[in-house]
Amino acid sequence: MKREEVFNFSAGPSVLPTEVLERAAAELVNYRGSGLSVMEMSHRSREFQDIFDSTKAKLKAALSVPDTHEILFLQGGASLQFSMVPLNLTAEGDAMDYAVTGNFAKIAAKEAEKYGRVNIAFSSEDTLFDHVPAQEELTLSPEAKYFYYCANNTIFGTAWNYVPETGSVPVVCDMSSEILSRPVDVSRFGIIFAGAQKNMAPAGVTVVIIDRSLAGRERPITPLMMSYQRMIDKDSMYNTPPCYNIYMLGLVLDWLEGQGGVAGMEKIKRERAKRVYDYLAESRLFRPCAREDSRSDMNVTFRTDSKELDAEFVKYSVEQGLRNLKGHRVAGGMRASLYNAMPMEGVTKLLDVMKKFEVDHV
Amino acid sequence: MKREEVFNFSAGPSVLPTEVLERAAAELVNYRGSGLSVMEMSHRSREFQDIFDSTKAKLKAALSVPDTHEILFLQGGASLQFSMVPLNLTAEGDAMDYAVTGNFAKIAAKEAEKYGRVNIAFSSEDTLFDHVPAQEELTLSPEAKYFYYCANNTIFGTAWNYVPETGSVPVVCDMSSEILSRPVDVSRFGIIFAGAQKNMAPAGVTVVIIDRSLAGRERPITPLMMSYQRMIDKDSMYNTPPCYNIYMLGLVLDWLEGQGGVAGMEKIKRERAKRVYDYLAESRLFRPCAREDSRSDMNVTFRTDSKELDAEFVKYSVEQGLRNLKGHRVAGGMRASLYNAMPMEGVTKLLDVMKKFEVDHV
Repeated sequence: MKREEVFNFSAGPSVLPTEVLERAAAELVNYRGSGLSVMEMSHRSREFQDIFDSTKAKLKAALSVPDTHEILFLQGGASLQFSMVPLNLTAEGDAMDYAVTGNFAKIAAKEAEKYGRVNIAFSSEDTLFDHVPAQEELTLSPEAKYFYYCANNTIFGTAWNYVPETGSVPVVCDMSSEILSRPVDVSRFGIIFAGAQKNMAPAGVTVVIIDRSLAGRERPITPLMMSYQRMIDKDSMYNTPPCYNIYMLGLVLDWLEGQGGVAGMEKIKRERAKRVYDYLAESRLFRPCAREDSRSDMNVTFRTDSKELDAEFVKYSVEQGLRNLKGHRVAGGMRASLYNAMPMEGVTKLLDVMKKFEVDHV
Repeated sequence: MKREEVFNFSAGPSVLPTEVLERAAAELVNYRGSGLSVMEMSHRSREFQDIFDSTKAKLKAALSVPDTHEILFLQGGASLQFSMVPLNLTAEGDAMDYAVTGNFAKIAAKEAEKYGRVNIAFSSEDTLFDHVPAQEELTLSPEAKYFYYCANNTIFGTAWNYVPETGSVPVVCDMSSEILSRPVDVSRFGIIFAGAQKNMAPAGVTVVIIDRSLAGRERPITPLMMSYQRMIDKDSMYNTPPCYNIYMLGLVLDWLEGQGGVAGMEKIKRERAKRVYDYLAESRLFRPCAREDSRSDMNVTFRTDSKELDAEFVKYSVEQGLRNLKGHRVAGGMRASLYNAMPMEGVTKLLDVMKKFEVDHV
């Protein structure tokens, strides 16, 4: 199929801007007259250092990262951060607060139990993670070393529309599936981390933004690659970083700037999601899965009242060039991931296909 | 500069075959009519699973990996393996044998000290790592949980030309800078690991080949991403793997097969290195750094008798289109990395440039 005939609603790895891919393809064999591919550059070379520095500077600018915070480019995905956070921020026996609003927050909390006392500050597991808490629903521990939450729950299609107030307890946030989709006051966070493969770059690089005052307290048994302080000291290059992924992130950030930055992205993402939710509100076949006050603009989850019909819709959507609309196995139903690089035509096509299917099945 | 005017002697990330890069560029935006870039594919999709499975199968065939061993594609580089090996293979207080024949083996041994009792089975540090031991120079501990060595010491240009005999103690080997350059009897190893960025693929994926009987004994505090057993159970996809790097490895393995596989590579690498060492033997200006019995075919280290002249040569070589010949800062001098993708014309050009410089400076 032609690229323009396909719309990719994958929850991650997910769609990248066509112009970014075209630029990457054009300079893949010989990067800007260097005679080398970026894939072949020594990470200690001037050329790569320039790519690294400019990518970092662009990310700092895009998210208005204050000078108190350091940007790291690591490996291992959000899942390695699930361990790295407690290994660096706690000593044995320390308490940590976790809000469990989805699958990944639940895994993170379970992982933290290896390293200390986990207080579940909130859980929506008994309603299949259909909502996130209001501030007053959080049971916070004053002695917690940090408060942890996942800003956008990819699988269930929910999002926090506020940053929790935790007093002097640092806030740690998994922003994998919403980073760069809206402005964020980074100063309110102790640590933000995000796997790249939703809004940033191909899978293989993890962005960590950390308040420097939180680093330098890792446990003695912490693997050398998992010390935030070491990575800060070495500017993410203790060993060879995932160079090409960092380069790709730089290209995406150039594209983002052309779209009006994170403020521009927020406007577009609201419009994309509103069109789908508005249709779901009036549909006689499809209904949204997440509670209205907790809905995500990034991942819209929906379903019919029949598993068979869900499966039929997914099959039909694939025939129409819509890819990866099947919901995650633990949630069922459908999920349309509307990340930054999803063009508005993708939403139009999705609604056309849903409406056609509805007419044929109601 | 044009690509054909440049030869890249970087120790890693390093040169990739031009035809691999050209193929990657051609299918970057739309992978074989799928309408998607490989960078955008869900790791749970059929298309990506096919890429993953075929890459794994090609690697299994290329290295004749026996069915007793599992191939994993992980993140974090060899440096994460420095911790992952002791966390999985030892309990607190256990002994481990390390042969320290270079910078990375030294770091690995130091890291292992966090987790147990490290016996230095051999060290050539007092002669700046200019050689590797003979079998009879190894001081092995019968109670060690494993014996560890680094097959090719990138910085110092030495290599082990045999697999150490350790009785029933499993052998763990860092093969980062020589994997796929020659046939290997994988059955003799408990664990082989290698960062991709020398002979395999762009930086960001780490290949681990592990005897399955060694997995499943990780310590309770092992980070979830660092359990070999979990990664075996999930076929390397507990979380999102570095998909594009795995795809690139697949392309490199196709190219490798066309070159006669690892047997073909061994023949070519010997010829490449012999030409340089033969010249060094007769040169009146340059001399090799590594002891003759320990020389690496992958990284040829050499120097003049003057640091100033070394620097002058490096400057001159850059003007001639030869890149990254400067030695590692801890070793000094020069280093020509002659990995699989280095064309023979690169060696010819290197020798021409060295000879011209010699004539002008002797």
